[in-house]
Amino acid sequence: MNLEDLPTPALVVDAGRLESNLAKMSEALPGARLRPHVKAHKSTELAKRQRAHGHSLFCAATIREIEGMAKAGLNEDLLLANEVLDATRLGVVASSGARVTVAVDSRETIEAAGRAGIMEVLIDVNVGLPRCGCLPEEAASLAEHAGKLGLGVRGVMGYEGHVVGQVDPSARQLGCEKSMQALMRAHSEVGGDLISAGGTGTYQCNTWATEIQAGSYALMDSAYAELGLPFEQAVFVLSSVISVSSKFAVSDAGLKAFGMDHGNPALPGARVLFCSDEHLTFVPGRADEDTAPSPIDWESPANAKVGDRIRLIPGHVDPTLAYHDRIHVVQDDLVVDEWPIDLRGW
Amino acid sequence: MNLEDLPTPALVVDAGRLESNLAKMSEALPGARLRPHVKAHKSTELAKRQRAHGHSLFCAATIREIEGMAKAGLNEDLLLANEVLDATRLGVVASSGARVTVAVDSRETIEAAGRAGIMEVLIDVNVGLPRCGCLPEEAASLAEHAGKLGLGVRGVMGYEGHVVGQVDPSARQLGCEKSMQALMRAHSEVGGDLISAGGTGTYQCNTWATEIQAGSYALMDSAYAELGLPFEQAVFVLSSVISVSSKFAVSDAGLKAFGMDHGNPALPGARVLFCSDEHLTFVPGRADEDTAPSPIDWESPANAKVGDRIRLIPGHVDPTLAYHDRIHVVQDDLVVDEWPIDLRGW
Repeated sequence: MNLEDLPTPALVVDAGRLESNLAKMSEALPGARLRPHVKAHKSTELAKRQRAHGHSLFCAATIREIEGMAKAGLNEDLLLANEVLDATRLGVVASSGARVTVAVDSRETIEAAGRAGIMEVLIDVNVGLPRCGCLPEEAASLAEHAGKLGLGVRGVMGYEGHVVGQVDPSARQLGCEKSMQALMRAHSEVGGDLISAGGTGTYQCNTWATEIQAGSYALMDSAYAELGLPFEQAVFVLSSVISVSSKFAVSDAGLKAFGMDHGNPALPGARVLFCSDEHLTFVPGRADEDTAPSPIDWESPANAKVGDRIRLIPGHVDPTLAYHDRIHVVQDDLVVDEWPIDLRGW
Repeated sequence: MNLEDLPTPALVVDAGRLESNLAKMSEALPGARLRPHVKAHKSTELAKRQRAHGHSLFCAATIREIEGMAKAGLNEDLLLANEVLDATRLGVVASSGARVTVAVDSRETIEAAGRAGIMEVLIDVNVGLPRCGCLPEEAASLAEHAGKLGLGVRGVMGYEGHVVGQVDPSARQLGCEKSMQALMRAHSEVGGDLISAGGTGTYQCNTWATEIQAGSYALMDSAYAELGLPFEQAVFVLSSVISVSSKFAVSDAGLKAFGMDHGNPALPGARVLFCSDEHLTFVPGRADEDTAPSPIDWESPANAKVGDRIRLIPGHVDPTLAYHDRIHVVQDDLVVDEWPIDLRGW
C-alpha cells in the first residue's frame, strides 16, 4: 500500500530513520549496556527490532508491558522499572519462565514482590527527580529487608529524569554526575551487578550506570531534538485536510491522536492554532518560527486544499503512541509493515 | 467487586451521578430534541443508557464510532458530524440498514458521500468556531450540488464551539444568538427538517436548533463545572499511591491515563506537581487553590501513605476516555458494571 492510500489519521514510522537510530544506539551502547525502555513505543514488534540490534534486556513501566513482552518471547531479562503494590500478575509472568525483576523503594513494595513470588528486585533510589525512589541512605536497609524475604537484590536503579532534557551539554553532564554520585553511594552499600539509570538525553554522558534505560532514541521526541543527539525524528501522524476556508485549514487528527502535555503537534511550514477532539486547525504558509504564543492573524491566506495530506510531528511521542493501535511502517512512500501497539493499557 | 479491589489506574464512573445527568438532560431536551454526541464517551453501553432515557438519534465524530453504534443496534439515525473524504466504510454501514447522515462543507466532501452511497447529508456551516463548515452564503450552492448528485439534504448543522465554554451566561447567550443567526440564514436557503447545533454549554440557551448535539453532560468536564449547569462530575481515575517521600507522593496514573490539553488532573486537597508517562507527583495536604503556577514549596509535609487510593479528576474527559479500554461503573463503593470503551480509534 502507498502512504497516500492509508486511512487517516494514521501513526507512521519511517523505517530507515528507525533503523538508523537503532544502529547508532547499539554501536554506542552494545548489547547489555542498553536496556531499551518499551514504554516509549509499546510495541513488541519494535522491541524485536531492538533485539535484532543486540539488546535482549528490556525495561517497562507497566505490568501489561511486561506481560506482553514475555508473551512475545522477549523474556530473557525483564525489568519493571516502576513500583507496584499488587504484583500478582507479575508473579505469573515470572513463574512462566521469564526472568522478572521489579523496582522497589519501600517495605510495602518489597513485600508486594515477595508475596507475588518475584525472585529479584532493584532498589530504586531517588537521584533528584521528584518521583519514585528511596533516599540513598535508605537503600541499604531496604536491600536488607528484601534479603530477609528471600529476594535477590540485583543492584540499584536511579533515573536522572530532571537532567535528561537539559539543553546545555555541560549542565547535563554536571547534573548527571551529581545524580549518579547519589546512586553510587547507594550502590556501595547495596552491591549487586546492576546500576540501572539514564535515558536518551544522558546515554553518552552517563558513564556510571552499567546499563542505560533509553526508549525515546528509537522514534525520537521533538524536545530531544534540541540536544544535538545523533538520532532523527522517525514518527509522524498522517492526517488529511478535510476543510479549508480563506483563513485557515482543518485536518482530521486531534486531541485523541496526540499526547498533548508538550503542547500542539508541529506542522512544518504552517502555524498550528489549536486541536479539538478530532481536528487540528492550522494556518498554512505561516511557519511556527517561535514557540511563544503570538496573536493570531486571521488575514493570513490559506494555501491548503481539501484532500491534501499533512505530516504532523507529535509534541511527545510516548503518550501519542498510547492512543494508536498500530504503527504503519513506511519506506519512502510505501507502507512495508504494520506493527500492533500491543502493550497499551495496564 | 469493591472499588478498593480494582487494579489501578482505573477509569471509574459514578452510576448515580451519570443517571442523574442523563435524567436532567432528557427532561430538558426530551427525545429527538437531543442528539447525544458519542465522541464524549465512546461507549455503546453508555449510549444505550442514553437511549433508555428516550434519545434514539446520535451523532459521532469518527467513522469508527458510527460503525460501532450501528453494530450495537443503535442505528436508527446516525449523524457523522464531521467531514470525511473517504466515506467507503460509512457507505457499508448505510447499506446495512442504518440511517446514516454525514456533514459536508465542500464539493469534495459531498462527492465523497455520493461515491460511497450515502443517501443523506447536512450542510455544515461555520458559525464562528475556526474549524469546519462553509460560509453561510455558500450553503445554498452546496445543497444544490448535493441535490444534483441525488443526495437528500436534511438541513444544516453549525457548532458554536467558541461559545459553549463562556462562563458569563449573558455573553454565552449573545454569542449563541449571533452564531445561530448565521445558521438560520443558511437554513432559510437550504431548507430541511434539521437544524443541528449546540453542546452542553448551550443546551439551554440554544432555542434555534431543532436538536442539540451535547455529549459532555453525561460525565461532565471540570471546565464546564464553572458554568453553573445542573450536571455533576461523574468520572474519575482511581490511582494508587506507590511511593511517598518527606516532600511529595507519587501515584500510578500519568500522561497515558489523562487527556492533558486542559492541564493536569485535579486532586482535591492536594497540589498536583506534574505527570510523567505512568506517574503523578503531588503534594498532599496542599490544596490547589488557584490554577496559576506558583513556586513549589518542597518543605510541605506529606501525609499520604503507600497504598492509599486517590481519585483524580481529568482535566478533559473526552481524550481521557480515549486512553482507557473500559469504564468501571460504581454505586457507592461497589463496582456494579464494566462497559467497554468500544468506539476508540478511527
